[in-house]
Amino acid sequence: MYKELTQEILDRALELGKGFTSCGKVASYIPELAKANRDNFGICVVQSNGEVLTAGDTDVRFSIQSVCKTILLALALTEVGEEEVFNYVLMEPSGDSFNSILKLDIASNKPYNPFINAGAIQVTGLLAQHNISFEQIITFARKLCQDEEISLNEAVYNSESTTGDRNRAIAYLLKSKQVMHAEPALVTDNYFRACSMNVTAKSLANWAMVLANGGCNPKTGERYLDAEHVRIINTLMFTCGMYDGSGSFAVKVGMPGKSGVGGGIITTAKNRMGVGVYGPSLDEKGNSIAGINALEYLSRELELHVFEY
Amino acid sequence: MYKELTQEILDRALELGKGFTSCGKVASYIPELAKANRDNFGICVVQSNGEVLTAGDTDVRFSIQSVCKTILLALALTEVGEEEVFNYVLMEPSGDSFNSILKLDIASNKPYNPFINAGAIQVTGLLAQHNISFEQIITFARKLCQDEEISLNEAVYNSESTTGDRNRAIAYLLKSKQVMHAEPALVTDNYFRACSMNVTAKSLANWAMVLANGGCNPKTGERYLDAEHVRIINTLMFTCGMYDGSGSFAVKVGMPGKSGVGGGIITTAKNRMGVGVYGPSLDEKGNSIAGINALEYLSRELELHVFEY
Amino acid sequence: MYKELTQEILDRALELGKGFTSCGKVASYIPELAKANRDNFGICVVQSNGEVLTAGDTDVRFSIQSVCKTILLALALTEVGEEEVFNYVLMEPSGDSFNSILKLDIASNKPYNPFINAGAIQVTGLLAQHNISFEQIITFARKLCQDEEISLNEAVYNSESTTGDRNRAIAYLLKSKQVMHAEPALVTDNYFRACSMNVTAKSLANWAMVLANGGCNPKTGERYLDAEHVRIINTLMFTCGMYDGSGSFAVKVGMPGKSGVGGGIITTAKNRMGVGVYGPSLDEKGNSIAGINALEYLSRELELHVFEY
Amino acid sequence: MYKELTQEILDRALELGKGFTSCGKVASYIPELAKANRDNFGICVVQSNGEVLTAGDTDVRFSIQSVCKTILLALALTEVGEEEVFNYVLMEPSGDSFNSILKLDIASNKPYNPFINAGAIQVTGLLAQHNISFEQIITFARKLCQDEEISLNEAVYNSESTTGDRNRAIAYLLKSKQVMHAEPALVTDNYFRACSMNVTAKSLANWAMVLANGGCNPKTGERYLDAEHVRIINTLMFTCGMYDGSGSFAVKVGMPGKSGVGGGIITTAKNRMGVGVYGPSLDEKGNSIAGINALEYLSRELELHVFEY
Repeated sequence: MYKELTQEILDRALELGKGFTSCGKVASYIPELAKANRDNFGICVVQSNGEVLTAGDTDVRFSIQSVCKTILLALALTEVGEEEVFNYVLMEPSGDSFNSILKLDIASNKPYNPFINAGAIQVTGLLAQHNISFEQIITFARKLCQDEEISLNEAVYNSESTTGDRNRAIAYLLKSKQVMHAEPALVTDNYFRACSMNVTAKSLANWAMVLANGGCNPKTGERYLDAEHVRIINTLMFTCGMYDGSGSFAVKVGMPGKSGVGGGIITTAKNRMGVGVYGPSLDEKGNSIAGINALEYLSRELELHVFEY
Repeated sequence: MYKELTQEILDRALELGKGFTSCGKVASYIPELAKANRDNFGICVVQSNGEVLTAGDTDVRFSIQSVCKTILLALALTEVGEEEVFNYVLMEPSGDSFNSILKLDIASNKPYNPFINAGAIQVTGLLAQHNISFEQIITFARKLCQDEEISLNEAVYNSESTTGDRNRAIAYLLKSKQVMHAEPALVTDNYFRACSMNVTAKSLANWAMVLANGGCNPKTGERYLDAEHVRIINTLMFTCGMYDGSGSFAVKVGMPGKSGVGGGIITTAKNRMGVGVYGPSLDEKGNSIAGINALEYLSRELELHVFEY
Repeated sequence: MYKELTQEILDRALELGKGFTSCGKVASYIPELAKANRDNFGICVVQSNGEVLTAGDTDVRFSIQSVCKTILLALALTEVGEEEVFNYVLMEPSGDSFNSILKLDIASNKPYNPFINAGAIQVTGLLAQHNISFEQIITFARKLCQDEEISLNEAVYNSESTTGDRNRAIAYLLKSKQVMHAEPALVTDNYFRACSMNVTAKSLANWAMVLANGGCNPKTGERYLDAEHVRIINTLMFTCGMYDGSGSFAVKVGMPGKSGVGGGIITTAKNRMGVGVYGPSLDEKGNSIAGINALEYLSRELELHVFEY
Repeated sequence: MYKELTQEILDRALELGKGFTSCGKVASYIPELAKANRDNFGICVVQSNGEVLTAGDTDVRFSIQSVCKTILLALALTEVGEEEVFNYVLMEPSGDSFNSILKLDIASNKPYNPFINAGAIQVTGLLAQHNISFEQIITFARKLCQDEEISLNEAVYNSESTTGDRNRAIAYLLKSKQVMHAEPALVTDNYFRACSMNVTAKSLANWAMVLANGGCNPKTGERYLDAEHVRIINTLMFTCGMYDGSGSFAVKVGMPGKSGVGGGIITTAKNRMGVGVYGPSLDEKGNSIAGINALEYLSRELELHVFEY
């Protein structure tokens, strides 16, 4: 029914994406991220039958950054519950940049969604309130990504912590609005750690495949997440996953996606595949420029757009 | 594979929705809309095989209001072209209310998407600039809805025009930013007329089915719209179609949708069905309260959510 | 008690101001204003004994622009009354730029003060509602400025009208909020005309002296304005008269002032003098750059600061 | 020349103000403040000849709250210098409420003025950066107020600290913008302490008289502050001293003033008098409701308005 992915198509996607790396730049607001190699680019695809295809730099370790917001949300839905989570975070795209404070201050006391910083910090706060430690977060990440080697990148963590004052401001603002009840210093520390977990394109593809597969590991059949929670995460990725480029990504690529300023992206195609990308050269929205372009090509070529005909 | 829609399921959806009409209220900011009967509620479903199921008030005529934004966009994509349209309107959810001016003034000169008022007015301006008259708009609406009886509701139009100063402000603001080049008085007049077209739940279901069918009339096979444009419209409906309740609708119902304060909603299920709703009792976001609840039920029951497993 | 103004001091102020003309630029957003000669600069001082001192280009005619807001307010206080005026306009500095819409949309339906565009347009609307024509406005301006030659600068007026869409947007927004009850098209036309009245530094100095003298013409003793209204106008000039540079002007110059993008400024020193300036080279806030600097010098030299010791 | 203040006039002001106490309410967002007696009201006037008149509760101790912003600014101007201070804080009225973050985030990295929270916190940060301890702040306060009994109100300080998360958010935001260089936790602690200094209406009147007297103690002739700095403080009090009621206070009362949510107000009349008020029942802007009304009466009666004729 659908065109199948071949190594040739994936190689072409890699090549096409690589053509854009020189048009973007690596994140610089966290000094440690500025050390990334702008020319790195890798794509890993895990298919529903468990087959794995890779092209490029899929074994390079890099910090997960905002892609961790999907894992934090998955953990909170599992441990805290859907109802409590969405009592404290909305489900609406914000149209503002990832670290905006504007809406939080003039439109709503609750963060607009779990994928802007305010929302992810609030989710991290709920985890803390339920006594879930960073150790449990990283353990959960290792399981979802099927990658026992995920560890804390200490250099990135220190850099995050040193430059994380805007996130601390957000945490205190949430506390002042009595939306967050945990201690801001602890919450932001956990959040900085979660952003500093070291992954590969392969780890991300595994996690994406779990999301593409309704919450189960396609190889073992083991259920990691409730199907309902997976539906929520995919939907929020579709509407809010790519910072203020989410709408354009939805139109052009048409897959649930979540990006991070470390250069990672996950995207999911229901029952077909999970994709993990690493490409630290970013476009002006903060998304991997090679990744976005490669994904647009793959979506066209393989008819992955959810509203494709 | 999927559970099929039956009259019984549709009747249950109707009944379930009706239970909510007393919790909402009819739009009052346009006086003529305040005359609607809060208890009216109807659902019409056109299926991909051409079969039509109805329940409740599916023949009541009411003003299309913001659902016309999908028709204006379809016409502009067809006549003005995708490139020019998206040179002047973004594709991003705004997270603000439908008639917000905030983002237009502080974040971007271009409206965030074609489904907030600023965006739809901008699209109407592009049509005017290309000498497309209201007559052509309504003719196009009749075709897409397969309903020759769509006419201008003069009473609503007069009421819109009398109370439309905020939309005029938006049009002048767009002109002052040199995004709109047509005459604001003409553009807003066309826009008020487009919002005042009289439709039924049945007309809307026909239009929704065209969108669910890649741009073709399923009964005649006639192509009304380019498949690419249909993909764009469905995606934008999914991310921005339900005012500032879009994100929540996407999570809970999971179908592309567009609502209007007249009480209309269209939703589409790819290759399966188009749904038209009429229910003028609105929730606080401006969406038909009976409609939203009935659609959530149908989505669950028939597994219509695009990210369902 | 105070140091007296001499021609020598005035000449030094002129020279000092002239040194700044090349650091600013003439207004360009209204094309006709862009034709001004950036090097023009003149200061006229009318003293409480009726004596007049001039330096530089004090006879050049130029459009009054936002300085007319003081005249519109004076007329509204006289004809409409203090109570009604301040039912529709606040008295608070806004901290936003002169043509901001932000506060009007998110903080208050009433314009923050009569000296931002929204406030002046609202005041013009109140005049229109009380059937006061532009003819009456210009007649009043001639009286306050003691200058029968004030006329409408047709070229500027046409230019204003052509580029005035943001002001039209503001007027429609005020109407939509039911703060303005007059017709936006008429109100903005009157406002554009009022901004296009042709004055000289001398005209402005005369008007400033009336304000410095509690509302009376110091030469004839004739009362033009109620003393209470003059107090209000001077206070608002002090807190809100110099666009978003008002606070800094208050600290450095310390006199009630009102500027216009045509290059005019009026400032008042109670019972001592009224000053009129013409200098079309503007700083980044939109205030005459030569004027600001000359006034700061005069304030220091003559101890004109209201909080001087 | 001016009408002189008599005990009878002051008593009438007290009585008039007292009539309003039941229309306002005591601050409640800091729990400890909620314990104030709403009916308390006192006015103390120190005249330039050293004479002191009092009426009502002028010996009740209460926390100085935002009135301390004038002392923090005075100390920073003295110890850090005018140039450095105004490199980091603007001089513009903001038109926003005292604890607004909006402008700081979208309009300017520098706080708009030293009398909104963000500005006062920034000033406190500059003091910290120059190694000025809270001990030095309170010592300076005792000198300016000529009141050795000013001490830290521990209960209020603890309450401030417990509920001060919004101020912490502001401090971290300033740090993230690299405007503040001191440690937010230390800075906010000093700020909470400064706000919790215990004063009386009498202490405030002494401080106000210093400001009314160009920086000198009128009784001893001792100079506490540079005259230039006093001019700046008085001007900023006039344009920004009374929260978002500053503009209206300037029009109606016409004296430099600074209020605090503890119920204190200082106002100054150049070379004539300093006034200290205590009245914890607040209007909706956060200003002592009895105080505002009594001051308006005194201003009228004694012609204290700077733009009076």
